[in-house]
Amino acid sequence: MKQKPLILVTNDDGIVAPGIRALIDVMKELGEVVVVAPDSPQSAMGHAVTINSTLTLQKVNIDSDINKEYSCSGTPVDCVKIALSQVLDRKPDLCVSGVNHGANSSINVIYSGTMSAAMEAGMSGIPAIGFSLMDFDWGADFEQVKPFIKKITQEALKNTISRGVVLNVNFPKLKTEDIKGIRVCRQAKATWVENFDKRVNPHGKEYYWLTGEFVNQDKGEDTDEWALEHGFISIVPVQFDLTAYHAIPELNSWEI
Amino acid sequence: MKQKPLILVTNDDGIVAPGIRALIDVMKELGEVVVVAPDSPQSAMGHAVTINSTLTLQKVNIDSDINKEYSCSGTPVDCVKIALSQVLDRKPDLCVSGVNHGANSSINVIYSGTMSAAMEAGMSGIPAIGFSLMDFDWGADFEQVKPFIKKITQEALKNTISRGVVLNVNFPKLKTEDIKGIRVCRQAKATWVENFDKRVNPHGKEYYWLTGEFVNQDKGEDTDEWALEHGFISIVPVQFDLTAYHAIPELNSWEI
Repeated sequence: MKQKPLILVTNDDGIVAPGIRALIDVMKELGEVVVVAPDSPQSAMGHAVTINSTLTLQKVNIDSDINKEYSCSGTPVDCVKIALSQVLDRKPDLCVSGVNHGANSSINVIYSGTMSAAMEAGMSGIPAIGFSLMDFDWGADFEQVKPFIKKITQEALKNTISRGVVLNVNFPKLKTEDIKGIRVCRQAKATWVENFDKRVNPHGKEYYWLTGEFVNQDKGEDTDEWALEHGFISIVPVQFDLTAYHAIPELNSWEI
Repeated sequence: MKQKPLILVTNDDGIVAPGIRALIDVMKELGEVVVVAPDSPQSAMGHAVTINSTLTLQKVNIDSDINKEYSCSGTPVDCVKIALSQVLDRKPDLCVSGVNHGANSSINVIYSGTMSAAMEAGMSGIPAIGFSLMDFDWGADFEQVKPFIKKITQEALKNTISRGVVLNVNFPKLKTEDIKGIRVCRQAKATWVENFDKRVNPHGKEYYWLTGEFVNQDKGEDTDEWALEHGFISIVPVQFDLTAYHAIPELNSWEI
C-alpha cells in the first residue's frame, strides 16, 4: 500500500487558533500530520524571519491523534524553516497554512503571515496551499468550509502543484450550501489607503495605531475580489519569482 | 523653474546606519529629501506591518540639511505607511530604500525589509528603488557606489518607472573603477537551505539560531547572481502582482 502523504500544517494566528484546529481535522483524514505553528499570534508578519534573536521549539499535545506537534517562538516563516530542518524526517508531500481568521485576497497576500509560510514551503520545493476565511472573528465557523478544504487538498495531492507556484485559497463567509463554487483567479489590483489613529499616552507622548481602508480599483470579473464578493471560493496561483519581465526591455532603453 | 523632486528615503538597517547616510547624501543632490526610517535594525522583516501594537514617530536631526527627518519604532513598511500618511504634505516623486548592508539579490528580495519598503511605496503608486551593497559590514565603503546610485536615480526620475514595478538594485563589493557596468536582469532561481545551530541556555532549555546556506541553482547569464559575480551592478524590475498566470489553465483542469 502506498505511504500516506506527509502533511506539514502551520498558520499565523498561533497554534491554538480555531482556524488551524479545523485545518488539522481535515488533514488528519488525508495523511500523516505534523504541526509546527507560532506560539503567539503573528498576523501581518509578511515574510519576516528571526535572524537577530533566538528561537525555541516546544513539543505540545493539543491534538492527541498527532505525534509531532510543536509550538515555535518565531514567525510563520521561521516555523516552516525549523520544521524542515529540525522536526521532519523527510520532505513533506504538502504544506498547508491557515485557516487564517480573515481574508488574504488581492494585495493582502504580500502582508500575510499565512501565505508567507506557504510561500516559504514552496521556495523549498514543497507543494503548498494557504487557506483563509473572510471572517476575522476568533469564533468564525470553519465547519462550513471543511468540505472544500478537503476537496482542494485532495486535488492538489493528486495533480501536484507546479514547481514555483503556491495556492492562495480564500473562502467567503457563507454556509456550505450557499457557496457557489470555486474560481481560479488572478490577484485583484487593490491597495490599502493608510490612516493612523493618533493618540497621546498618559505621559504626554504621541503614539499611533495603524488603520486603513481597503480600496479595490479592479473591476475585472477574473479577480479573487470579484469571486469572493459573488459567493465563490477564490484560488490564486502565486509565485515567488517577482521579476517583472515585461519591464526589462524598457529598462534596457535607459541611459545607464 | 520646475519644483525639485520630493524624495522619501528609508531603509531597514536603522536610521543611523552608514548605508542610509550615503543614500541621503546622494539624494540631497537630486531633490528635496524627507527621511523616515526605523529607530532600530529591522533586517529580514520582509513585509511585516505593526497591527497589534502601537508606533511612535520621533523627529530627529542627524543631517542638518534636512528639515523632515524622523525615526519610527516600526518596520520598514510601517515607515513608508506613516511617512505617506503623517509626515509628507504631498505624494513623493520617488521613494528610495537602503543602501542595505548586504545583498538583496535573487530570492532574498522576499525576506528583505529594504525591498519591502520600496514595494510598499510602489503599491501606493510611488516610483521606488531599493539599493543594496554586497557587504554586510557596518563599515562597508558606500563611497564606491555613490556615482551609480546618482545615475540610476536620475534616470528613474527622467524616465519614470512603470506603475506596478519597483527596482531592486544590487552592487558588487568593488571599487568604482572596477565595476564593469549595469545589467538589467531577472531574479535568479536560488534558495536558502536551512540549518539551525542548536544550543542549551544556562537554565538547561534548548534554543536555536537560524543559519543556512545560500544555493544558486540558476546558471543563466541573464540573472542578478550572474551579473554580481561578474562585477556588474544588477537591476531587477520586480512586481507585487504575484499571480502565476501560466498556472491558471492547469488549475482550471482540476476537478474542483
